[in-house]
Amino acid sequence: MDLNSDLGEGVGGPSSRLDDDLLEVVTSANVACGFHAGGPSTMRGVTAHAARTGVAVGAHVAYDDKEGFGRRFIDMDPHVLADEVLYQVAALDAFARRAGTRVTYVKPHGGLYNAIVTHEAQAAAVVAGVTAYSSDLVLLGLPGSVVLRLAEAAGLRTAQEAFADRAYTPEGHLVPRTQEGAVLHDPAEIARRCVAMATGEAITDVNGDRLLVRADSICVHGDTPGALGIARAVRAALREAGADLAPFARAV
Amino acid sequence: MDLNSDLGEGVGGPSSRLDDDLLEVVTSANVACGFHAGGPSTMRGVTAHAARTGVAVGAHVAYDDKEGFGRRFIDMDPHVLADEVLYQVAALDAFARRAGTRVTYVKPHGGLYNAIVTHEAQAAAVVAGVTAYSSDLVLLGLPGSVVLRLAEAAGLRTAQEAFADRAYTPEGHLVPRTQEGAVLHDPAEIARRCVAMATGEAITDVNGDRLLVRADSICVHGDTPGALGIARAVRAALREAGADLAPFARAV
Amino acid sequence: MDLNSDLGEGVGGPSSRLDDDLLEVVTSANVACGFHAGGPSTMRGVTAHAARTGVAVGAHVAYDDKEGFGRRFIDMDPHVLADEVLYQVAALDAFARRAGTRVTYVKPHGGLYNAIVTHEAQAAAVVAGVTAYSSDLVLLGLPGSVVLRLAEAAGLRTAQEAFADRAYTPEGHLVPRTQEGAVLHDPAEIARRCVAMATGEAITDVNGDRLLVRADSICVHGDTPGALGIARAVRAALREAGADLAPFARAV
Amino acid sequence: MDLNSDLGEGVGGPSSRLDDDLLEVVTSANVACGFHAGGPSTMRGVTAHAARTGVAVGAHVAYDDKEGFGRRFIDMDPHVLADEVLYQVAALDAFARRAGTRVTYVKPHGGLYNAIVTHEAQAAAVVAGVTAYSSDLVLLGLPGSVVLRLAEAAGLRTAQEAFADRAYTPEGHLVPRTQEGAVLHDPAEIARRCVAMATGEAITDVNGDRLLVRADSICVHGDTPGALGIARAVRAALREAGADLAPFARAV
Repeated sequence: MDLNSDLGEGVGGPSSRLDDDLLEVVTSANVACGFHAGGPSTMRGVTAHAARTGVAVGAHVAYDDKEGFGRRFIDMDPHVLADEVLYQVAALDAFARRAGTRVTYVKPHGGLYNAIVTHEAQAAAVVAGVTAYSSDLVLLGLPGSVVLRLAEAAGLRTAQEAFADRAYTPEGHLVPRTQEGAVLHDPAEIARRCVAMATGEAITDVNGDRLLVRADSICVHGDTPGALGIARAVRAALREAGADLAPFARAV
Repeated sequence: MDLNSDLGEGVGGPSSRLDDDLLEVVTSANVACGFHAGGPSTMRGVTAHAARTGVAVGAHVAYDDKEGFGRRFIDMDPHVLADEVLYQVAALDAFARRAGTRVTYVKPHGGLYNAIVTHEAQAAAVVAGVTAYSSDLVLLGLPGSVVLRLAEAAGLRTAQEAFADRAYTPEGHLVPRTQEGAVLHDPAEIARRCVAMATGEAITDVNGDRLLVRADSICVHGDTPGALGIARAVRAALREAGADLAPFARAV
Repeated sequence: MDLNSDLGEGVGGPSSRLDDDLLEVVTSANVACGFHAGGPSTMRGVTAHAARTGVAVGAHVAYDDKEGFGRRFIDMDPHVLADEVLYQVAALDAFARRAGTRVTYVKPHGGLYNAIVTHEAQAAAVVAGVTAYSSDLVLLGLPGSVVLRLAEAAGLRTAQEAFADRAYTPEGHLVPRTQEGAVLHDPAEIARRCVAMATGEAITDVNGDRLLVRADSICVHGDTPGALGIARAVRAALREAGADLAPFARAV
Repeated sequence: MDLNSDLGEGVGGPSSRLDDDLLEVVTSANVACGFHAGGPSTMRGVTAHAARTGVAVGAHVAYDDKEGFGRRFIDMDPHVLADEVLYQVAALDAFARRAGTRVTYVKPHGGLYNAIVTHEAQAAAVVAGVTAYSSDLVLLGLPGSVVLRLAEAAGLRTAQEAFADRAYTPEGHLVPRTQEGAVLHDPAEIARRCVAMATGEAITDVNGDRLLVRADSICVHGDTPGALGIARAVRAALREAGADLAPFARAV
């Protein structure tokens, strides 16, 4: 099983305490590329650390929207979006290569991630931008999303993502954040669910019924002290359960 | 002899009339990389056109300063500057490669270009950023500048630039723009000077004395209708004089 | 009748030739506030010129989106949007007051203008942002739009805008740009239609039938040489027809 | 005595825990205006809280440089700088007025603050920008700086700032950060020095000799957990010593 998290979202410097802490927990790092957060020096710092510790480097591509931290939907020209994806992946890969590793996957961020679950034109643009850089990249996204379907049709490998701290509907979708109980907070419970996902066991859905969630990677957060603690609990539980913790897309 | 000019400084679209016109005149295109102007889609448009017409693609790297169009000196951390140079070169090269060519040289822009004539730390940072991407890149700059000296010391090839429309001091320096007569306006006179530079003949300096200017590339402008006319006159005169018009750094 | 146009969309300097030309044609200037284009120095230049010539100053408020020139819909938090509107109006008014005039109206720009024809939450946010600055401001928008309805409900005065160069449906809506014939190009015809609107006469709709268009202001463009010529033709025709050319919202 | 600190440097939301904590400690809030950090919604949030608690609101004007957090010197056109200062002050004052208070002072930030200690043209530009908004504003800056001298010559009131956690030379200047001992860390010692400044007593300079530091306001930081603790210690010590804690520039 792989654990992924968002990194390199600071500005102005090559490293942050949070990035360093998370890089000891995850096996895949979604690195901000300067469009919603981060920038050249954080990209250098995170890729260098990731290369040292064997963490896979993914391009966390986003809308060009620092004001909104990339969280807002932008109704933009798909050709421009494809160009922006290519630009971000290429820039990050330069830092990864300089550090002795390389970008092995792409995970869209925030508003873009949500949009391309259903937005055909933007999903196709993301796939086009990724493919323009390299057909060897893996696209990490939400199971059942349009972007994963289009990526596979374009010959890209894909990886499916589950969320450690989110409740699921009986259909296997995420319970919307606006509903009560959508986000889980108990580290022990979250860790148990992640172990279940990693070992092919069922978890309980929002109604308490059994649900099998298949995932290539589990997303954990680090943006609060509590979140970092949960991420560590998940990692510890997975190791104790004998799960093989490794990147889903390893640099050769 | 090579003719270079700044391109891709528009926003939001893949091409502009000015870029298209200039790409029929020059042999090397300094392409804005989104830091002082331009962006992913202009980078795609210009590199595609340049690849079709055999124009060399150079990264016009700049301070991250859209507000000031990259013209202002910024007293920034040299490590961050090196990272920003690497970021820009890598992003542009992705579009060049996709178009079937590649970035073969780097020309710093505006305030950065002026700074690294003398600013050791920033000059070293530019060299470090370029070298981090590839030691095969050529650095285009002002003869006698610190950045060219450091680039050569670091094993990079360099190219020296002359200016078609600028008066020179007896020492071979540019007459500052604040002095009268610093900028030439007569297309015929400018073309004659360029032919002289291309054929190893002397031009006249600001005092009317003979001056030998050695250059690998002549910079022409396109940002006014008059400037485009001058650029065309220079090209026509060079061809008529039998000068071999070709990029100083050709993509293999 | 009032003529309005978009101004101050350049960067880095206090004035442009286009702005100067347009300020001799229009009676109301929609001034960019630095969010989609322009900035402090263009705001100073345009307001100073407008104050000298008696042109009304309006805040051309926009999404914070220089990359997309404010043309793209952004699905943003309405509270943040309201704050951004207030910020822009206040900043522009400082330049207007310093020039001896003041901001008398607000016209949303581009993607925001289009969104709040129908988007209730964003329309309410624009009204809230305007009202937070001053209830004396007039909101200029599309007849029948949600934002004008909400503005009136909030006690703001509103002004209805017609478009000089656009075809109208029998219902009085704009023919979408994607349809043939949506945009008119003949200066004489455009001028005739504007005179009709100014004198309470009918124009012809896209089917050739008579249509009465009521407007407080007619929008003209200046962003191409042709557009400027049309704007001048409209002004000349209105004066010749004896129309009273004056701002719909005059600074006291 | 007044305590000032930098606030509103987050993005995207109206409030942060740090801002809220600091607003219980200081008597004057230097609020970021969206140029180096912050933005419309943080400006709304901080001014609203400041108005409730009687904290004075100051415009923390900065270079337009989010990438560098406003910390870098930018060699910019003084006219543009003056316009940018006016723009920022006006925008912040709109939020202050809406909250029932107003901007009463201006404190330049970071790279600009340092530049105008000596840079005549930029110092004059800041004074011009402030005066263009209102001659009632107070300029807060470094004792002996060019900007304070020019502000007084222009008829502005000025306030002198001391630093709680910095060592002083025998001449009363700050010991440069590059020298050992430049920054103090012991909360008790820092608090003692602040009490001395507030009560007209001497502190010890970097050599251990007595030094009288006159200040209208003491700058405290909040950007680390330790810094917030120090700020609280300073406030507690000042109150215990019977110092009158109040803004140097109170809104009427």
